[in-house]
Amino acid sequence: MTASWQEYLHENRARFLNQFVDLLRIPSISTDPESKGEVRRAAEWTADRLRQAGIAAVQIMETGGHPVVYGEWLHAPGKPTLLVYGHFDVQPVDPVDLWTNPPFEPVMKDDAVYARGATDMKGNLLLPVIACEALLRTEGRLPVNVKFLFEGEEEIGSPSLAPFIARHREMLACDLVVSADGGNGSVSAPQVSVANRGLCGLQVNLRTARVDLHSGGGGMMPNAIHALVEILNAMRDAEGRILVDGFHDEVRPLTEAERAEIAAASAKYEAGRLAAGVKAFFGDPDFTPAERMLARPTLEINGIWGGFQGSGVKTVIPCEAHAKITCRLVPDQRPDVIRERVLAFIQKVAPAYADVSVEVLPGEADPYVIPGDNPGLLALERVLTEITGTAPERVRQGGTVPFMGMMKRALGVETITLGASQAGQRAHAPDEFFFISDFERVQSAYCRFLQEMGR
Amino acid sequence: MTASWQEYLHENRARFLNQFVDLLRIPSISTDPESKGEVRRAAEWTADRLRQAGIAAVQIMETGGHPVVYGEWLHAPGKPTLLVYGHFDVQPVDPVDLWTNPPFEPVMKDDAVYARGATDMKGNLLLPVIACEALLRTEGRLPVNVKFLFEGEEEIGSPSLAPFIARHREMLACDLVVSADGGNGSVSAPQVSVANRGLCGLQVNLRTARVDLHSGGGGMMPNAIHALVEILNAMRDAEGRILVDGFHDEVRPLTEAERAEIAAASAKYEAGRLAAGVKAFFGDPDFTPAERMLARPTLEINGIWGGFQGSGVKTVIPCEAHAKITCRLVPDQRPDVIRERVLAFIQKVAPAYADVSVEVLPGEADPYVIPGDNPGLLALERVLTEITGTAPERVRQGGTVPFMGMMKRALGVETITLGASQAGQRAHAPDEFFFISDFERVQSAYCRFLQEMGR
Repeated sequence: MTASWQEYLHENRARFLNQFVDLLRIPSISTDPESKGEVRRAAEWTADRLRQAGIAAVQIMETGGHPVVYGEWLHAPGKPTLLVYGHFDVQPVDPVDLWTNPPFEPVMKDDAVYARGATDMKGNLLLPVIACEALLRTEGRLPVNVKFLFEGEEEIGSPSLAPFIARHREMLACDLVVSADGGNGSVSAPQVSVANRGLCGLQVNLRTARVDLHSGGGGMMPNAIHALVEILNAMRDAEGRILVDGFHDEVRPLTEAERAEIAAASAKYEAGRLAAGVKAFFGDPDFTPAERMLARPTLEINGIWGGFQGSGVKTVIPCEAHAKITCRLVPDQRPDVIRERVLAFIQKVAPAYADVSVEVLPGEADPYVIPGDNPGLLALERVLTEITGTAPERVRQGGTVPFMGMMKRALGVETITLGASQAGQRAHAPDEFFFISDFERVQSAYCRFLQEMGR
Repeated sequence: MTASWQEYLHENRARFLNQFVDLLRIPSISTDPESKGEVRRAAEWTADRLRQAGIAAVQIMETGGHPVVYGEWLHAPGKPTLLVYGHFDVQPVDPVDLWTNPPFEPVMKDDAVYARGATDMKGNLLLPVIACEALLRTEGRLPVNVKFLFEGEEEIGSPSLAPFIARHREMLACDLVVSADGGNGSVSAPQVSVANRGLCGLQVNLRTARVDLHSGGGGMMPNAIHALVEILNAMRDAEGRILVDGFHDEVRPLTEAERAEIAAASAKYEAGRLAAGVKAFFGDPDFTPAERMLARPTLEINGIWGGFQGSGVKTVIPCEAHAKITCRLVPDQRPDVIRERVLAFIQKVAPAYADVSVEVLPGEADPYVIPGDNPGLLALERVLTEITGTAPERVRQGGTVPFMGMMKRALGVETITLGASQAGQRAHAPDEFFFISDFERVQSAYCRFLQEMGR
């Protein structure tokens, strides 16, 4: 007697949670060259897990960087083909001393699992795998054709993925991409993501002398940190408007309807601000905070360093200084164009006494918006309405999933997002966490969504 | 048959140079808590070396921080008492990868010794010790009474020295202080130092959220680095004028005579600029570079850090950022007053969304100027004229020797400087060096100066 997939999910809850914790223990930090073996270990773990789920055709495929895990189950002739996307790499853990527990020793407390990668996105990665296992074990088949594409470079901007997609267009052909990298709100406030921002970034390296100088020479000798500070400060005004020439040229003006839609969805951000201990939102006062985050580009200094950073005092005039800058982009900005404009601005405002060079950071990505009548989007909305009793809100996301723009550019396919992450779970920050109840709830949502797509 | 002190110095050249190298091998970095034992080892080495020189009364004396070495030879009744000052601690070595050789493995090449502490000031420390040894071994006596005070905290601003002086006023009583921490130009262009700048400093710690945030929230969430950059940039204008309210209130206006004196002495700085690989001097255009360095206060960012500093990209909105700032001060600025004004300015310009706190950095020091008719200064000028055939130029120094202001405040005594350091020897920077020929030449100058003072 075969149980239902619902019973299967329920009965195997503890096993699935243990597997989640196993995966969290692998420190698969893609940006750290020393963690290369760990990223591969996460790939191997993921490939094994797919095979355990009953996906026979699974392979680890090499790229110029970290490997890709690909699997497929294509035994539903006449049915649509979905490509499930996710990543098994994680962000770095610094500042590591701000973690309550070691980031790769998962701790469960109440309804939450705390670890690096908990919400971004090792829990989410398992959801479609577990859902397919439940359907295959209980019904012997899936209601649609499914391909799995899990990468190990999302947190460094997926540099190997565009060439990988170009090389494997046929293998990856599909009717819809389902990204597991994100979330769909809560049971009381379900949502579907309809837009993500793009990304470009560069590192500024500035030099004013051959060596650090004694600050007794101060007054004569230029200081690299002052020069860098001058350049960086010129990029935004005191209210947060970005002053880079041409930065907003291609940004679509917000319509009144869009402003109203964003306003309706924006109350929830206040809770995130309070949870983060942020005194006040900040940015261009011509737009609301939610408008700025969802429909306007940004320019952020992600890191800065130069001179003496130890304890005590060192009376030195630093000869070099560095900063990392990334921009989040919105339609119709192109990452290469914006990056060039930032570079031109830096060159324009750099003091004559400074030598400035720039490195392009990996991870350039197009912004992405899904058409409002996409059949996959409509199916997802039906499923979420059925599960929660509430019609989900359509929301834009401030973050970036490079994969969406790539699949649109390369294969012309659209992407919907189905995952269990929620705002405030400290993605990219110390004490990242994920709700266990969401982990279980969205496994069911995946089963229902696959069934809905198979109708 | 007793040799002359000149012969003694010449015959023992190799031994003295070996001792210099021995002292350079001790990594006595006073700012590094882990090097505490090494600073003490340098103190013990120095005490032993004084005893070897024939100074019987030598002791290592405790302070709240690193110890002080004190020695005295007081067998010249009716003659003046000189107090020789120096320090056996050194600056940190970072960025250590920019050193050609390991900083505590001295390398001799041509006429130079390369190591941390070579020019600042382990070579200089040995000069008066060697001179006294030569006189004692050849003449059996010194021409004046001599006290030695060597400290281990100069590079962190001598925090324990003022209380030490207050506790030992009688022991330290003298007619003139001779600081070995500095130089007297070259044979072709001898000089005497008549002024040093003072110092104050603080560390700015800025926070905008409880944890680092995902830059997908950019547009809403404030960025600690942007806030810090805004504050720091407000402190100086694009031409380098310091904009802190009241910063220059007590600065003595330069007289035409002083401007002419500085102009006459300023040609040499061009060589230092070229050697340092600096494209152009920088600073307030109302003053010449030399005026700014010698007679105007500065405000320098010595270090800055925040957010992600690793390789690659991390799309984070940093929640904290830090900078170290020091100011060089000129008569009649007071370090505590200027520090308070910088703090008030930071509080004035800090964005409302940022929490800013400030730590006072150790090492506050008064600026110092010696009266032009001081007998010790005149004696030094006579000796240098005799040795080099050229009347030394009177110069101001951009750097700080906290001890001078302390001795003036506590004991009312003036300080002259006799040492062998030259500009461009990379004090505080990688590949610091010192000329061997100067090391030997200024040993003789010390002997002659002691004799001149004994007349």
